[in-house]
Amino acid sequence: MSDALPALRDHLAPVEDLKAAAAVLAWDQETFMPDGGAEARAQQLSTLQSQAHEQFVTDETGELLDRAAEATADADPLDDGAALVRVTRRDYERARKVPSSLVAELSQATSEAKQAWKRARTEDDFSIFAPHLEELVDLSVEKAEAIGYDDEPYDALLEEFEPGLTTADVASTFESLREPLVPLVDAIADAPQLDDDLLRRSYPQSTQKAFGEQVLADLGYDFDRGRQDVSAHPFTTSFAHSDVRITTRYDEEFLPTAFFSMIHEGGHALYEQGIDPALARTPLAGGASLGMHESQSRFWENHVGRSRPFWHHHFPQLQEAFPNALGDASLDAFYRAINRVEPSLIRVEADEATYNLHVMLRFELERGLIDGTVSVNDLPERWNAAMDDYLGVVPNTDADGVLQDVHWSMASFGYFPTYTLGTLTAAQLTEALRDDMDLDARLADGDFAPILDWLRTHVHRHGRKLTAPQLLERVTGQELSADAWLRYAENKFGALYNLN
Amino acid sequence: MSDALPALRDHLAPVEDLKAAAAVLAWDQETFMPDGGAEARAQQLSTLQSQAHEQFVTDETGELLDRAAEATADADPLDDGAALVRVTRRDYERARKVPSSLVAELSQATSEAKQAWKRARTEDDFSIFAPHLEELVDLSVEKAEAIGYDDEPYDALLEEFEPGLTTADVASTFESLREPLVPLVDAIADAPQLDDDLLRRSYPQSTQKAFGEQVLADLGYDFDRGRQDVSAHPFTTSFAHSDVRITTRYDEEFLPTAFFSMIHEGGHALYEQGIDPALARTPLAGGASLGMHESQSRFWENHVGRSRPFWHHHFPQLQEAFPNALGDASLDAFYRAINRVEPSLIRVEADEATYNLHVMLRFELERGLIDGTVSVNDLPERWNAAMDDYLGVVPNTDADGVLQDVHWSMASFGYFPTYTLGTLTAAQLTEALRDDMDLDARLADGDFAPILDWLRTHVHRHGRKLTAPQLLERVTGQELSADAWLRYAENKFGALYNLN
Repeated sequence: MSDALPALRDHLAPVEDLKAAAAVLAWDQETFMPDGGAEARAQQLSTLQSQAHEQFVTDETGELLDRAAEATADADPLDDGAALVRVTRRDYERARKVPSSLVAELSQATSEAKQAWKRARTEDDFSIFAPHLEELVDLSVEKAEAIGYDDEPYDALLEEFEPGLTTADVASTFESLREPLVPLVDAIADAPQLDDDLLRRSYPQSTQKAFGEQVLADLGYDFDRGRQDVSAHPFTTSFAHSDVRITTRYDEEFLPTAFFSMIHEGGHALYEQGIDPALARTPLAGGASLGMHESQSRFWENHVGRSRPFWHHHFPQLQEAFPNALGDASLDAFYRAINRVEPSLIRVEADEATYNLHVMLRFELERGLIDGTVSVNDLPERWNAAMDDYLGVVPNTDADGVLQDVHWSMASFGYFPTYTLGTLTAAQLTEALRDDMDLDARLADGDFAPILDWLRTHVHRHGRKLTAPQLLERVTGQELSADAWLRYAENKFGALYNLN
Repeated sequence: MSDALPALRDHLAPVEDLKAAAAVLAWDQETFMPDGGAEARAQQLSTLQSQAHEQFVTDETGELLDRAAEATADADPLDDGAALVRVTRRDYERARKVPSSLVAELSQATSEAKQAWKRARTEDDFSIFAPHLEELVDLSVEKAEAIGYDDEPYDALLEEFEPGLTTADVASTFESLREPLVPLVDAIADAPQLDDDLLRRSYPQSTQKAFGEQVLADLGYDFDRGRQDVSAHPFTTSFAHSDVRITTRYDEEFLPTAFFSMIHEGGHALYEQGIDPALARTPLAGGASLGMHESQSRFWENHVGRSRPFWHHHFPQLQEAFPNALGDASLDAFYRAINRVEPSLIRVEADEATYNLHVMLRFELERGLIDGTVSVNDLPERWNAAMDDYLGVVPNTDADGVLQDVHWSMASFGYFPTYTLGTLTAAQLTEALRDDMDLDARLADGDFAPILDWLRTHVHRHGRKLTAPQLLERVTGQELSADAWLRYAENKFGALYNLN
């Protein structure tokens, strides 16, 4: 037996430990850290991240990869060793192509841009942010050029989040989604609105927490390998498959805020908790892509949590938990309330149907920024025009428009489309899952184990061994497509809004 | 200007960041980490610690130290740069002397010994732990030989916690403490016992937390640069002078458990929060020694928290917080209750007077283990004989005797004496402080700012720039001595127990 693979693993494990340590520090920063700790924490995180990067891009990593490649040359692509070499080499070559000076420039520029973005949003003044955004666009194009691409520079940026997918793939999929979706949303907007007043009653936080955590445990989230805390923006973080934590935020006068964020983050966490332990401390211990990760959160949030069969089982428990707010409510009224669709201005508050339009708008604009067809100065106007076009609503302020999201201030171009890729993938996976079991019957029985088992077997355990397109093909026999989600949405909202 | 000092600082800062990151991970491990995270966390901590060590002991550190030494050759010893070179070189030379193979052996052996100690304590069977302890003694002697010493190997181990102090210093100081202390404790034991029943009433945890944190804030602990959580064993940890956290544990049927642990840990935390920010991210950002650290916790716990003037101000507030438990209690009865002295078996539950006897017993035994005059197999018998001799009580089981403390399973020989060094130093510092202000009047007014200012100026801000003996000499004009504490104890307990 060659020792090439063990040597590669031994070399990579400490790098993964440094990244996990950074994740712990970042989690603490968002949950428990006192305000005074911010400056020191930024330095500690910077040290951990740069040391992890430096140790990863050494020549030694390349030599160990070459030796391990020989040792696994004849192995199956799903063999752990072969996948480790393939995926690590992809990360390695990408990381080596970006010069350290550019990494440092981007780090400095995003740090300044984030401060400027915060001020711009508070003061509702896009001009404060504009020069920073221009610099980030320039540096990101420079990064894309350094990495290389086939068709357009955005490809190189997208690849960081969605290996194996091109800008053209995303654009054509989104096109086939948008064409039927805009008229669907229009039709919903013209139909009599659903009433969600019953969600806006008094919901004490401690009861929300107890009910939500019971549901999370029922779904299969293992609290011996995780915990839930409060943060300003909900997130999931993993320090190991055996320590995957989620956060949420509460609104005592709007039930969905915490509940659906809990099962959304719970979906991300179930993915991380389900990765094969044999992949621990390697670059394979993560999700196939951001889109595949989002498919898991959207599956549990929407296909489970916003379904009628789920609440058939859980609504009586919810009524018992909140007798004052829901004692007089019917299951039907509750189901309609949690599925109310209404075109609105803010992405993170958007409903299941309109959310994708928010995402597509951002994708189109940032693709244009990177290929030079959209200028930063035109952005607010382009934003508002697209909002009007897709959603029929226009923000009164840039703070509620082009300045609402943090992503561009972090130079995370290529991130936005993954939200909708996740939504579409979730629908495709759900159809495949329905071929194998009666999902509605399982949900109506509160019997989640077979559902989670199916996801574990088909998706979770593989970690990053396959790309998202490879995994999707393997599970569904299909390429990425909007069809499954459109079938789901037209069926669900058609019935809810009597659209025929 | 030479760039030698900035270059040294730039080289050391990331090492300090790695250590701070390890401290965050260790804090999380004791407070919030789910059980499942233990194995991965141990690996992450091991990586951070070994990388910090490796980066510190490089030849480059030595070269930078040499260059910086030239640049600071003419500086005052209290100059930041000169102190940085001096203290870092001390750490560096010590770290370089211990071979990596021995570090690894000790790490492995302590890991196994800690498991064995836990089992031995649960099963009350010293023989489970004995062979591990023998190995740890052998490895520690080997380490002492590698480091070198003047008189006896224990010197080299003590130096890790108390730079500038020798075993002979400690032994002679302890001797001069023990001689009058044993008869004092005997006399107290023969006197009519003080009643502490009123401390054993019902004290709801949330009120204990609110009252204790208010006192901490009053003392000057800055909650914007810290926080308090719950852990099995209370501790203080610092990630920067701007993020210093404490933990406590609650007993709803015994008020002192949480309250005195809070101000004890608060004392440690005030030290760390008070270190000059200019020393951040250098090896100077810490306490002068474990004993000097303990002097700060003991000062606030005992000279403040168990004093009559402190409660003159705070007892009415405490009564208001706990009207059911304390509404009918008098200040005098409360003061007597919190100062009850009673020889007992367990160090961490011991009172202010008998605590030192627990420590001296451990110091004598571990010194004997290291110089070969005490064998591991004789330890239980020696322990029980010394307990009888010093305290007049003998444990029925080794679990309540020689197996009660974790320290030896971690090979922390040299740690125990620092508890009593801290107690003695606190008394010496208190006498010096009383020369400068009317401490009792300040306490009776609840006016802590001048007290904390005095400690900041004389002790805290210097960090590790001076050793404990240097700092003590500078502040009090004295060497370490038991006299001040004996004056304090004979005066306080003489009055409480009518000993004359």
